[in-house]
Amino acid sequence: MDNLTPTSTAAEALALRYGAEIPAAGPWNEHIALLLSHRSIRGYSPTALPNGTLETLVAAAQSAATSSNLQTWSVIAVTDPAKKAELARLSNNQKHIEQCPLFLVWLADVSRNQRMADAAGVTLETMPFLETFLVAAIDAALAGQNAVVAAESLGLSTVYIGALRNNPAEVGAVLGLPPGTMGVFGLCVGYAAPEVTNAVKPRLPQSAILFHDSYGASDEAGKIAAYDAEMGAYSRRAGMGDENWSGRVLLRMGRLAALSGRDKMVAVLRAMGWPLK
Amino acid sequence: MDNLTPTSTAAEALALRYGAEIPAAGPWNEHIALLLSHRSIRGYSPTALPNGTLETLVAAAQSAATSSNLQTWSVIAVTDPAKKAELARLSNNQKHIEQCPLFLVWLADVSRNQRMADAAGVTLETMPFLETFLVAAIDAALAGQNAVVAAESLGLSTVYIGALRNNPAEVGAVLGLPPGTMGVFGLCVGYAAPEVTNAVKPRLPQSAILFHDSYGASDEAGKIAAYDAEMGAYSRRAGMGDENWSGRVLLRMGRLAALSGRDKMVAVLRAMGWPLK
Repeated sequence: MDNLTPTSTAAEALALRYGAEIPAAGPWNEHIALLLSHRSIRGYSPTALPNGTLETLVAAAQSAATSSNLQTWSVIAVTDPAKKAELARLSNNQKHIEQCPLFLVWLADVSRNQRMADAAGVTLETMPFLETFLVAAIDAALAGQNAVVAAESLGLSTVYIGALRNNPAEVGAVLGLPPGTMGVFGLCVGYAAPEVTNAVKPRLPQSAILFHDSYGASDEAGKIAAYDAEMGAYSRRAGMGDENWSGRVLLRMGRLAALSGRDKMVAVLRAMGWPLK
Repeated sequence: MDNLTPTSTAAEALALRYGAEIPAAGPWNEHIALLLSHRSIRGYSPTALPNGTLETLVAAAQSAATSSNLQTWSVIAVTDPAKKAELARLSNNQKHIEQCPLFLVWLADVSRNQRMADAAGVTLETMPFLETFLVAAIDAALAGQNAVVAAESLGLSTVYIGALRNNPAEVGAVLGLPPGTMGVFGLCVGYAAPEVTNAVKPRLPQSAILFHDSYGASDEAGKIAAYDAEMGAYSRRAGMGDENWSGRVLLRMGRLAALSGRDKMVAVLRAMGWPLK
C-alpha cells in the first residue's frame, strides 16, 4: 500500500491518507489521485531535469489565481551550487537544498508594483499594510502549490522549505533581493534519490478540520487521540519508532527555540521594506 | 481559442496564458493542461454538487504539504443561504457567494493546537508571533489551491474571495470562530452559470517574474508595456473595452479605500487572538 501511484483507486488513496476514518468521498479521477499521492521528499539524485521543466512549472504557477491580478510574487530558480550551499546553511543546514538540481525561492514581491508607481509618480497608499504582505505571501503559496502539482505529475519530487524564513535578510543578500520582497518559502525539485522512501502521511480525520456552517467538532479530543494512534502506526511501519503527533506538536509549538529566529521576523521585515501596519 | 479545455495542446495553452512571449516550456501532460486552463468564475448555476464532492475536495486539500505536519488550518463548508447572504454582505456584496451551492471559508487555525496544549497544561511559546499566523495562512492557501485543482478537474468552477478579510471579526461572529482562527479567504465552488464566460487571462511574461540565481529582469518596463498591450487585447476580445493593467494596479494599490477596511487588520487580528509579535 505504500507504493501509491496516481492510478490508485479512491479507496486505496483515502486509506493511506486517513487510516481508519475514511471520508465518504465522491467523484474521483486521475487528477485527484495525483493530489492524494503527495509526499514530501528530503533526498534527491543529481539527475538534471529535462529541458523546459522549469518553464512548465512556472507556467502552471502563473496559472493560479492572483488577487486582483496584481501578481505580487516572483520566483528565483537557484541552480548555482555555491548559492544553494549558502541557502542550505541559512535554512537549518538541510542537505536536500544542496542535493536537488533545482531550488525555487518563492518571493512575496511588491517591488515591481512599486517600480511601476515610481515611474508614474504615483504614491501607493496600500503598501505599508499587513494585508499587502499577506496577499503577496498567499499568492506565492497558490503559485507554488500549482508548481508542486505540475512537478509531481512529471514524476518529480518536492519539499517545501519553511526554514528559508529563518534568516530573510541574509537570504535577500544571497539573492540580491530589493526592498519590498521576501523569500516566503523554498521548494526543492528533483528526482527522489533511490534510497529515499516516504509513504503518504496520514492527516487528521476530516471530521476534525471540516465543519458545516459553523465552527466546531464534536469529541475533538477523541479524534486527536485516534489520529495519534494512526501516526504511531505510520511511524512504526516506516521503521521510525513510536511517534506521538500531539507530543510533537506541543514540542514544536511549545519552545521558542523551534522558531530558529523567526520570532524576530517583524523587525527584519520592517527593515526589508514591509512596514506591516 | 477561448474555449480552452484540459486536453488543449501545450502551444494552445501557453498562447492563451502568455500571448506573444511564449515560454520554452518542456514536458507536458493532462495534469499541466488542467492547471493552465484555470479561470476564475463569478456567476454560478444553482445546480447542487454530486454527493461526496465536498469530501473529495477536502481530501485533496489535506494532501497538500503542511509545515511540520502542524495542520494549523480548518475549513467551513457554508451552504446555509442566510449565512451565505451574510458573508456576501461582509465581502463587498459579491453576489456569487450567494449563488454558488458551496462556499468554503478557509481558516488559519491554531485554536486546535491551543486546545491540545491547554489539555496538556503546556504553554506554547511560539503562539504570539507573526510567523505562526503566516504558517497557518500559507498552509490554508496550499490546501485551498489543491481543492481548486480538484474542483476544476471535476468540471466545477471556483473563485477566491479575498474580500472575506474586509471584516474578519464579523465573519468570525457569523461562523462562531474561536480565538486563534481567521477566515483568510473564501472560495466559491459550483457549476458556472451558462451565460458566464471567462477566457484564460494572460499573465506577465515569465521573463518579468522568473529569475536565475539572483533577482532582476532586464528591460522590466518594456516587458510591462508589452503585457499592458496583451491585457488590452484580452479585454477587447472579451468585449470589456480597453484595459490598462498598469493603470489598474496603480489604482488598486494606490488608494487606501481599495483595502475596504483591511488597513485595520492588525488591530482586528490582535483582538481575535493573534498577537502578531
